[in-house]
Amino acid sequence: MQPRLEPKQQAVLAQVREISQTKLASRAAIIDREAIHPKESWRDLWEAGFLATGIPKAYGGLELGPLTYLTVVEEIAKVCANTAMTVHMHSMVTRMIAAIGTETQKAKYFSEVVKNGKLFGSWGSEPGVSITSGGFRTTLTKQDADSYVVHGQKYFCTMAGAASYAMIWCTFAGAPPNTPAMTWIVIPTDSPGLQIHGTWDPLGMRGTISPSARIAACSVTQEQILGKIGDMGVYQLGVLELFMMGWAAICAGIAEGALEYACNPSPENGGTAKPMLNLQEPIKQASIGEAVVALDSARAFLYQAATAWETADPGVRRLWGTEAKASCSQAALLTTNRLLELIGGRAALKEFPLERAFRDVRTATLMPPPLATMFETVGKSLQVKPGVQSIRL
Amino acid sequence: MQPRLEPKQQAVLAQVREISQTKLASRAAIIDREAIHPKESWRDLWEAGFLATGIPKAYGGLELGPLTYLTVVEEIAKVCANTAMTVHMHSMVTRMIAAIGTETQKAKYFSEVVKNGKLFGSWGSEPGVSITSGGFRTTLTKQDADSYVVHGQKYFCTMAGAASYAMIWCTFAGAPPNTPAMTWIVIPTDSPGLQIHGTWDPLGMRGTISPSARIAACSVTQEQILGKIGDMGVYQLGVLELFMMGWAAICAGIAEGALEYACNPSPENGGTAKPMLNLQEPIKQASIGEAVVALDSARAFLYQAATAWETADPGVRRLWGTEAKASCSQAALLTTNRLLELIGGRAALKEFPLERAFRDVRTATLMPPPLATMFETVGKSLQVKPGVQSIRL
Amino acid sequence: MQPRLEPKQQAVLAQVREISQTKLASRAAIIDREAIHPKESWRDLWEAGFLATGIPKAYGGLELGPLTYLTVVEEIAKVCANTAMTVHMHSMVTRMIAAIGTETQKAKYFSEVVKNGKLFGSWGSEPGVSITSGGFRTTLTKQDADSYVVHGQKYFCTMAGAASYAMIWCTFAGAPPNTPAMTWIVIPTDSPGLQIHGTWDPLGMRGTISPSARIAACSVTQEQILGKIGDMGVYQLGVLELFMMGWAAICAGIAEGALEYACNPSPENGGTAKPMLNLQEPIKQASIGEAVVALDSARAFLYQAATAWETADPGVRRLWGTEAKASCSQAALLTTNRLLELIGGRAALKEFPLERAFRDVRTATLMPPPLATMFETVGKSLQVKPGVQSIRL
Amino acid sequence: MQPRLEPKQQAVLAQVREISQTKLASRAAIIDREAIHPKESWRDLWEAGFLATGIPKAYGGLELGPLTYLTVVEEIAKVCANTAMTVHMHSMVTRMIAAIGTETQKAKYFSEVVKNGKLFGSWGSEPGVSITSGGFRTTLTKQDADSYVVHGQKYFCTMAGAASYAMIWCTFAGAPPNTPAMTWIVIPTDSPGLQIHGTWDPLGMRGTISPSARIAACSVTQEQILGKIGDMGVYQLGVLELFMMGWAAICAGIAEGALEYACNPSPENGGTAKPMLNLQEPIKQASIGEAVVALDSARAFLYQAATAWETADPGVRRLWGTEAKASCSQAALLTTNRLLELIGGRAALKEFPLERAFRDVRTATLMPPPLATMFETVGKSLQVKPGVQSIRL
Repeated sequence: MQPRLEPKQQAVLAQVREISQTKLASRAAIIDREAIHPKESWRDLWEAGFLATGIPKAYGGLELGPLTYLTVVEEIAKVCANTAMTVHMHSMVTRMIAAIGTETQKAKYFSEVVKNGKLFGSWGSEPGVSITSGGFRTTLTKQDADSYVVHGQKYFCTMAGAASYAMIWCTFAGAPPNTPAMTWIVIPTDSPGLQIHGTWDPLGMRGTISPSARIAACSVTQEQILGKIGDMGVYQLGVLELFMMGWAAICAGIAEGALEYACNPSPENGGTAKPMLNLQEPIKQASIGEAVVALDSARAFLYQAATAWETADPGVRRLWGTEAKASCSQAALLTTNRLLELIGGRAALKEFPLERAFRDVRTATLMPPPLATMFETVGKSLQVKPGVQSIRL
Repeated sequence: MQPRLEPKQQAVLAQVREISQTKLASRAAIIDREAIHPKESWRDLWEAGFLATGIPKAYGGLELGPLTYLTVVEEIAKVCANTAMTVHMHSMVTRMIAAIGTETQKAKYFSEVVKNGKLFGSWGSEPGVSITSGGFRTTLTKQDADSYVVHGQKYFCTMAGAASYAMIWCTFAGAPPNTPAMTWIVIPTDSPGLQIHGTWDPLGMRGTISPSARIAACSVTQEQILGKIGDMGVYQLGVLELFMMGWAAICAGIAEGALEYACNPSPENGGTAKPMLNLQEPIKQASIGEAVVALDSARAFLYQAATAWETADPGVRRLWGTEAKASCSQAALLTTNRLLELIGGRAALKEFPLERAFRDVRTATLMPPPLATMFETVGKSLQVKPGVQSIRL
Repeated sequence: MQPRLEPKQQAVLAQVREISQTKLASRAAIIDREAIHPKESWRDLWEAGFLATGIPKAYGGLELGPLTYLTVVEEIAKVCANTAMTVHMHSMVTRMIAAIGTETQKAKYFSEVVKNGKLFGSWGSEPGVSITSGGFRTTLTKQDADSYVVHGQKYFCTMAGAASYAMIWCTFAGAPPNTPAMTWIVIPTDSPGLQIHGTWDPLGMRGTISPSARIAACSVTQEQILGKIGDMGVYQLGVLELFMMGWAAICAGIAEGALEYACNPSPENGGTAKPMLNLQEPIKQASIGEAVVALDSARAFLYQAATAWETADPGVRRLWGTEAKASCSQAALLTTNRLLELIGGRAALKEFPLERAFRDVRTATLMPPPLATMFETVGKSLQVKPGVQSIRL
Repeated sequence: MQPRLEPKQQAVLAQVREISQTKLASRAAIIDREAIHPKESWRDLWEAGFLATGIPKAYGGLELGPLTYLTVVEEIAKVCANTAMTVHMHSMVTRMIAAIGTETQKAKYFSEVVKNGKLFGSWGSEPGVSITSGGFRTTLTKQDADSYVVHGQKYFCTMAGAASYAMIWCTFAGAPPNTPAMTWIVIPTDSPGLQIHGTWDPLGMRGTISPSARIAACSVTQEQILGKIGDMGVYQLGVLELFMMGWAAICAGIAEGALEYACNPSPENGGTAKPMLNLQEPIKQASIGEAVVALDSARAFLYQAATAWETADPGVRRLWGTEAKASCSQAALLTTNRLLELIGGRAALKEFPLERAFRDVRTATLMPPPLATMFETVGKSLQVKPGVQSIRL
């Protein structure tokens, strides 16, 4: 079931669908096989404004609301999960800048995106630490009035070698005890002291190119710091929670794309003359039907949450983002597994896109938090102190 | 996540919630234990107009749209599944009359409901036959110009002994071969020839009182036939599909009510001073959280389908009704099972309502079609002939 | 797949099967409906020696090994879960006495069983405490040289009103700090100070009659204490772990009995002329087949563990008991749920035994520890310190 | 839980474990990465006699019974699924020859294996046809007294380019109607007319090198035909059913190997200094514990069936093979998925073996029949005509 979109939103969706099917789709296999950046696909999306979905219209962006934005990401993921994931990460950084950046920062960075097609990475993960767990060991230390230095180590630095800037999640060294010290800085990826190392050879999401990085005494000025140091107000803005909603949309999109390819192949989805999944037998119908029910329910939740997103309070958004990611992850895993099982050995051959969809879903769903932790978060939300209304019920 | 309701719809929901909590809730246990009709609860709902949710305003009814109607049923089910199920069945008959009845029929039957609080049963099931499978052996035979006679046997005759009228699903004997012969007649339950027999002692949904009936040469006049004999146009009206949506809402409601009682007891939900489910341990949080994610996704699908219901074509409504019933059934079973498992032996004692919720969900989800068949229906919808757009994708 | 039994073991199994089918089966429904003790069934089993399966031959018992014992319990559970559960609990107490009782205790108590058919309950549960969690608040306090007094409160006192003796799980008040203080005492159930109270009206396992009890200053002599106070050596004997194996066998047995009744009815299993589950459609075959695969795998584990039981060390037995209970619980729940779903509404009527099997499995599987905790125990067993061989791998 | 093995069987297992850990393990990654034949591993196994496990002692083979054979295959799969799968397929052909071959065939082919380390492939799959479905379109046609010709097309020709001989599953063209026409022939893989084509680039099991083959007018003599044409007696021998048991053992082995590596790394399993799966948190313990319970139950069934294999009748073996494959497939999928989820993104990197275990299990479980079909087979076995004892119950 499609979400309820206004005509204007539908036009945006139709446009990105056109680009996805005619341009992005045919490149997806080689991006995966060679583990290369989807550079041409980024360019095509940039030309149509889709690197600026999170940038206010005043700065030349599309300024898409949550529902339209998520359907755009889902649509891209139907044909190329790597393009969808990298564009989503980039878009989240632009939304952070829009939410807490200074005028100067906005002018500078948004122009880089809109005019020059520059990309922004968001590098959070560290050994044992993730953007959902917090507690980063990468440290920002003040040197003098306007000068800082950052040290640390980051895992899974997506778009390494292609993003022009990286938003680094770090801890401010000089914060008084028991004071939030989390902060975000934007650094050019060619900064002296920033060094990409390690290889990138994973199961799936191979075009996200996410090796490790060392940050050794990298200089930072005040103008590179987003928001006020230690001001956790950003958690009240609901931007961070949109990360999870996007991951949910990407999982749903990969599964939808695989389903469409397997059942209703067409020139648009690169399909073979005959559907790979032949749905004549009742047990096959029932087996894939179970997955579709899960997928449609998960997507309905995602769209409903996106529709109500902007008027919901931050705690509720966190819960919704968690539920959407959990539900879409489960449904996408079920769907891609069932497709393989019902088609059999041929579905595992790399000449067809189902094998890639399967690997991409399995890998994308490993982004933290894991399922068990998401369920824990949701369970925790159920019980409140007497007199306090649960955010869920 | 609550569905998006207009202020007017919210007022309706608030009113039924008030009645449910202050009047219906405290009777639910005895209705179940003694397997008796929820007569006082029907009366309370009737007085507030809730036996007329499917009756047009022109005839004194509430004429609720699908979304509001389903949230009303869900709300009642939170406290008394038996009341919700019987009211839903009654309401579906009134919607059938509204859709295909003559002016005379509407005037007569709607007045009986609005003024006198009369109830309508819908008796479809036969040995090996159900309202979703069709092919009834109960037969309507023409005697002369305006006179018919009906013979047959019905299972699961809900509200037997309390409904004043029953809509009987039958086959017209004189139809030419290969012609649809399905028809619906409305008969007073005290008609000579109609005889209730058999006992009613089931696992759950015990207050729906659904024994078997024999119909032996029961006389029927033209005025008792709904619509034109064999006119399957009713399947284009989407009324029948709303049956499944209501069952979905009832399952979701029972599970929601159980969850609320177990986690956040209050005087309103009849709860104990201390929550029966103590959610301090992470594995308990994660275990119930998994069920909540499933339940919220299923409800989101239900609400999204209900919102788009009236502009959707009949085939799509059938698919949506199937998906909603499948998804809400699974989620409600998971939720009530997890509550029992996490609370332990005490949850199985009849002094608390969780045991009843568990039995009611397990029994309500046995209403046809079964899960495997619903999944089959959904799977079948995926594949269309080349050039034909699937109703789902 | 049946376990591999020697001819002697097969004869024992054939005998209990004969008694179960010809005598126990026909009483099972009323025991459940009325929530009464299975007194006649106990008598029949006693006459054939089956109340003495855990009593050494030297004392007139059958002294069955673990595998034969568990198949006996499983066989009884196929026709009457209540009889199986109470006999299992009684048998576990006799095994405790055999393991740690004095000669005097053995002579006295075993004679009561063998000659007089007396029954022993095992009362452990307290609010928030269970035999698997430990930490009982029921307290044994020394009065003088040979005199003690016990105080406390017990939940789920199985066979209350029918067992002649109860083994009480309690804590010795005078134990030095950090010393194990757990102890077991055997008291006549008509002891002054022991008072059964509360009602017993649960979902299933209704013939186990397990209300609450208050123990107020109940006098105890040295001869009533089993083993040495605080001697946890009993945990090295593997008797307590056999509790869980028996629960596993009971769940498997109920599910097997239900499956047999539904698919292959016969006069022996009280079946109807036509199978309630008609297995003509592939999706029905596949749906029940999935449950059967789970059930057969769980039973294979149970039998394999039982076969190797006596030479395994206590830690391994604990792991096996946990795995067997977890696996058989899941499989029995899946099997009884699938039977209901595939048969439909008729399966929920109390005139057929499937509804009872469903309730009994759901209730029996609520005995602690819950699934999530069992999985935790198994997961914990996987990782050992470097150089230490895991008990599993 | 390990199966119960005699000392002699244990010695065989210890020997293959030694070879696996010291020789096979370190080659597994490159075999997968490059999709190359495990030639050196075959040679090591051959030198120790493990290419002759299915060859009678009279011909110089090990003549292992089913239980020992399956534990050998499982042990190899713990370190290299590709070696295990190819050796299993080869061994099945030698068992077919032992069961229905002539003396001349045995002398010739067994000597090739024992003395020269030659390998045998088994090529059954065709578009839409598999060894479990039958109905091959590859056709054997008689030319004259001792001369035949074979035509056809085969998919998934495992060990193409490395096996010296291939057993081809085909249909005898001259069979009278309604007569079984299935037959097996052994042809040298360098026969004129046999042409390997197509590529081999799959998700997992990449070292099995299974491209397609065309067989165009390939000459065959009487001596190359195994057994009597159309003599379906081979289905009474239980050899074919052992195929499924071996696939089950391979899935279980891969999962066991992955579990050991992740939780208890050691130099033997190539493990890292610190376990990749840190099992400190209860929800992680519970999550992996659930998989372990499934895996241990599935393995218990496999061992129990293997132990009773030789005295079971063919229909029972077919059922057991189906149940074992279904249960071990499910458990291995659950285990490898949980390992990835609980470890997170690092588990998806190719520098660790878990990613490969995951792909190998997902691919191996696509070998026919699929899960839904296996469940259907098991469900079908439950119901027999009155008076006929079900092979299961």
